Amino acid sequence: MQGLMMHSQLTLTDIMRHAGANFPDSEIVSVTADNPAHRYRYRDAFARTAQLAHALQKLGAQPGERIGTLAWNDYRHFELYYATSCSGLVCHTINPRLFPEQITYIVEHAEDRWLFIDPMFLPLVEKLADQLTSVKGYVILTDSEHMPTTSLPNAHCYEELLALEPMEFDWPQLDEHTAAALCYTSGTTGNPKGVLYSHRAMVLHTYGVLMPDVFALRGDEAVLPVVPMFHVNAWSIPYAVPAVGAKLVFPGPKMGCGETLSRLIRNERVTIAAGVPTVWLALLQYLRDSDTTVPSLERVVVGGSACPWRIMEEFEQQHGVYTHHAWGMTEMSPLGTFNARVANDLPADAARAQRLKQGRAAFGVEMRIVDDSGQPLPHDGTAFGALQVRGPWVCERYFKAGESALTADGWFDTGDVATIDQCGYLGITDRTKDVIKSGGEWISSIELENFAMTLDGVAEAAVIGVSHDKWSERPLLVVVPTEGAAPDPQALLHAFTGNVAKWWIPDDCIVVETLPHTATGKISKKDLREQLADYRWPEATPV
Amino acid sequence: MQGLMMHSQLTLTDIMRHAGANFPDSEIVSVTADNPAHRYRYRDAFARTAQLAHALQKLGAQPGERIGTLAWNDYRHFELYYATSCSGLVCHTINPRLFPEQITYIVEHAEDRWLFIDPMFLPLVEKLADQLTSVKGYVILTDSEHMPTTSLPNAHCYEELLALEPMEFDWPQLDEHTAAALCYTSGTTGNPKGVLYSHRAMVLHTYGVLMPDVFALRGDEAVLPVVPMFHVNAWSIPYAVPAVGAKLVFPGPKMGCGETLSRLIRNERVTIAAGVPTVWLALLQYLRDSDTTVPSLERVVVGGSACPWRIMEEFEQQHGVYTHHAWGMTEMSPLGTFNARVANDLPADAARAQRLKQGRAAFGVEMRIVDDSGQPLPHDGTAFGALQVRGPWVCERYFKAGESALTADGWFDTGDVATIDQCGYLGITDRTKDVIKSGGEWISSIELENFAMTLDGVAEAAVIGVSHDKWSERPLLVVVPTEGAAPDPQALLHAFTGNVAKWWIPDDCIVVETLPHTATGKISKKDLREQLADYRWPEATPV
Repeated sequence: MQGLMMHSQLTLTDIMRHAGANFPDSEIVSVTADNPAHRYRYRDAFARTAQLAHALQKLGAQPGERIGTLAWNDYRHFELYYATSCSGLVCHTINPRLFPEQITYIVEHAEDRWLFIDPMFLPLVEKLADQLTSVKGYVILTDSEHMPTTSLPNAHCYEELLALEPMEFDWPQLDEHTAAALCYTSGTTGNPKGVLYSHRAMVLHTYGVLMPDVFALRGDEAVLPVVPMFHVNAWSIPYAVPAVGAKLVFPGPKMGCGETLSRLIRNERVTIAAGVPTVWLALLQYLRDSDTTVPSLERVVVGGSACPWRIMEEFEQQHGVYTHHAWGMTEMSPLGTFNARVANDLPADAARAQRLKQGRAAFGVEMRIVDDSGQPLPHDGTAFGALQVRGPWVCERYFKAGESALTADGWFDTGDVATIDQCGYLGITDRTKDVIKSGGEWISSIELENFAMTLDGVAEAAVIGVSHDKWSERPLLVVVPTEGAAPDPQALLHAFTGNVAKWWIPDDCIVVETLPHTATGKISKKDLREQLADYRWPEATPV
Repeated sequence: MQGLMMHSQLTLTDIMRHAGANFPDSEIVSVTADNPAHRYRYRDAFARTAQLAHALQKLGAQPGERIGTLAWNDYRHFELYYATSCSGLVCHTINPRLFPEQITYIVEHAEDRWLFIDPMFLPLVEKLADQLTSVKGYVILTDSEHMPTTSLPNAHCYEELLALEPMEFDWPQLDEHTAAALCYTSGTTGNPKGVLYSHRAMVLHTYGVLMPDVFALRGDEAVLPVVPMFHVNAWSIPYAVPAVGAKLVFPGPKMGCGETLSRLIRNERVTIAAGVPTVWLALLQYLRDSDTTVPSLERVVVGGSACPWRIMEEFEQQHGVYTHHAWGMTEMSPLGTFNARVANDLPADAARAQRLKQGRAAFGVEMRIVDDSGQPLPHDGTAFGALQVRGPWVCERYFKAGESALTADGWFDTGDVATIDQCGYLGITDRTKDVIKSGGEWISSIELENFAMTLDGVAEAAVIGVSHDKWSERPLLVVVPTEGAAPDPQALLHAFTGNVAKWWIPDDCIVVETLPHTATGKISKKDLREQLADYRWPEATPV
């Protein structure tokens, strides 16, 4: 028997309507290239969003078409988010930091019809324009005064497009499964893959993000997203904030600038900020050097990669700011887990260990860990296995992919290896492709590397699995010595005894001058494995 | 184009699963007739819920069948909520305070197959049993030791039913539109009407209730629902609390007992409590008389009827407790609006006026006010009209009703008359059936009554619309004098001049000895209108 409640569709249009009816006076503050201190209110934002929707219609955009953006976090990008999605188009945010050939691939794969471009990215796009066969034209995100000359064909000025359009738009009533936004993963292997978010997923994800033990955004806050709007919708902050009526503070192209972040936080009384560890290092460095405080700031959300303890410690001890670990991925919209501030009686060491974990699943996300054969493993904080997730804001299949991205029993495999404890705390242990499979059991490469890094004479360390006749794989330790040091490989291996399980101890150690790195500075284990393809275990390796 | 996210169904089973995986150690504390201090953990609760689901299967309950409950707020009722809904049955909570003939009507109309009854309600149900033709049997919510003798046919003991069942249950994968719960309105006119909640509506409502500017429940809180689980699912608290892992404190039959409430709050360190104004009067009275404090209590949510300012004031000044006004109705699951604590610069008078309003719509609820012809009125805080709502947790049609309960353009008419201001604050002005329609304009009976009550010699006042040849209706004031007073009707009417709009001033005043009241103590305007059916305006009434 079915319930008899209204079949209202969950759409981003509801967020815009709710914000307009309840919080017309809330502010949006932006840094842009043409105005370092732009400021307006929700009422203005949504009037301009309506104008943009009219302009998109005049440009001939058809329902379902993808509109690409190459833009920073600012009010125009915010308008694009809502004008496209709420009029039935798909907002395709493109990461301008990708390699040019990846950008070309993505625009062509998405079949973007129009590209909205920050003037800063014009040189980049001009070089690619010949290859962007699906693009009908370009819109430069600026006003007439700042409109640059460009070689791009069919190029428009954003403010001129909007100027004469009506400030109200008859938003269509969309089905909640309608596509709203598209974001490509910047996977290290193969071509980028597109995640096509639905309105329903975005609205449910917004509720998840807002939960009191997640972002817990109140209407009287000011929120600073330092995570780019071209990266998983800035963790959905541009949706979550209007749903509660808080002030939005957009840093524009200045996301890595400690001085700008500090000034925005102080002037706009920012209470919560979100970003990857790197931006917090920049901010803390600036605060330290300039002897500046950020009294309004209550908490910082850190995701993207594990947050070093010293960032958490400095925020808390120097600035009274609580740091929350969060974990997610493009395929999860991105919210997976959040490490909330929880009153508990844990001793300091255990409390610190818990805070360094990725936190608990937000309500709406279900997690499990499985072994090689797909069998669920216990949630005891010790067993570790492939982390799989499911829920209404998890990707089911990639854009234009013929087949489901899920396991046969309907879970999405994250590519991470993790532990989950009895209270649901997630601990990411390794990437699936890096974990070492030895005799049917798994060995975490990251844990071995972390230990190796504590040893004298070791500047950098990587552990990879090398095939082994008896055990399938065994760990090989590869180290770069600190300057002037010449560590003895056998002594390094010996040091593991008593510090990790005996069968985890690497079977051999190689000292090298350098390790291969990715564009973002991480050790590239893929390249390392290729470099060591011819490596063979010494004869004397114990079995 | 459709998005490509997982089509996960939103079901209450997800709440149970989430709570089990993340918060197995959280406590549920209950007062019951057979144990004034029952205490167990979520892990125990869900193990017993599984046992109950098995027991319901053995009793022959079929998917979609309604299972009635006549029970207080306690752990067994909590188990019933989840065991029924999550196994595909419908949890029909029955208000034992209704007239016996209404209970019979409701059970028959719902076609309840089994009734789960608190021993306290046994005498009531025994009297009705002959007329309950759909009921196959009864389960008494107690253990063998406390099992009473009863004349009810096919009566079982709850604890005996559960005792030998397995503690795990293979919960079915339900469609999100599946009916989960049924609750009848106790409408003053006509037969009670059933609202059939879907799993989807309950999950979305849970997200809405949890929002930081609504209940804002954190995992480290203790929550005391003093609103009955037989009244709109205790405002959904039994769903919202497990979703975040907080402690649940159930007062059982002791909801009106200030001493019990005070003891539970102190012993269990309750941080948030919710209920109607009456229970807070009882609690405050007890705290005053016993000179007791409730230091853990942070906030109280008040709904059901307007909260008198003195309750808000006493909570805040004596106990540092913030009181939130909330508004909703059975047809809205019930959350409509919530008056959050918002930092603002309003002067004291305006701040007080804002706090006495019903608050802002939760994200998920859309509101409008319309005039007699259904045309939307401005949200300016002054215009008032029929309040209509829509959203995914609003009733579309009543149980077994042939037709939709919505307007032609898809809104649910609440039966209230209200203002909405520019920032979305709702002010309930009157009931639609009580508002006076004079010359195409509306006059609030409540505002006139509130003013009349300030006049010397007036103990009680009611204003009703009486038909009028020229103006369609005009207001008639009916007052009960205070003991020994004999107010002059013309003087009373004269006192309105300058205090309300001239055309709002009642055209006549009658002094009576008593006014008719409803069972819950409110003035029954329906009865008053019937009593005065023969009333005619004096000849001299101005036109």
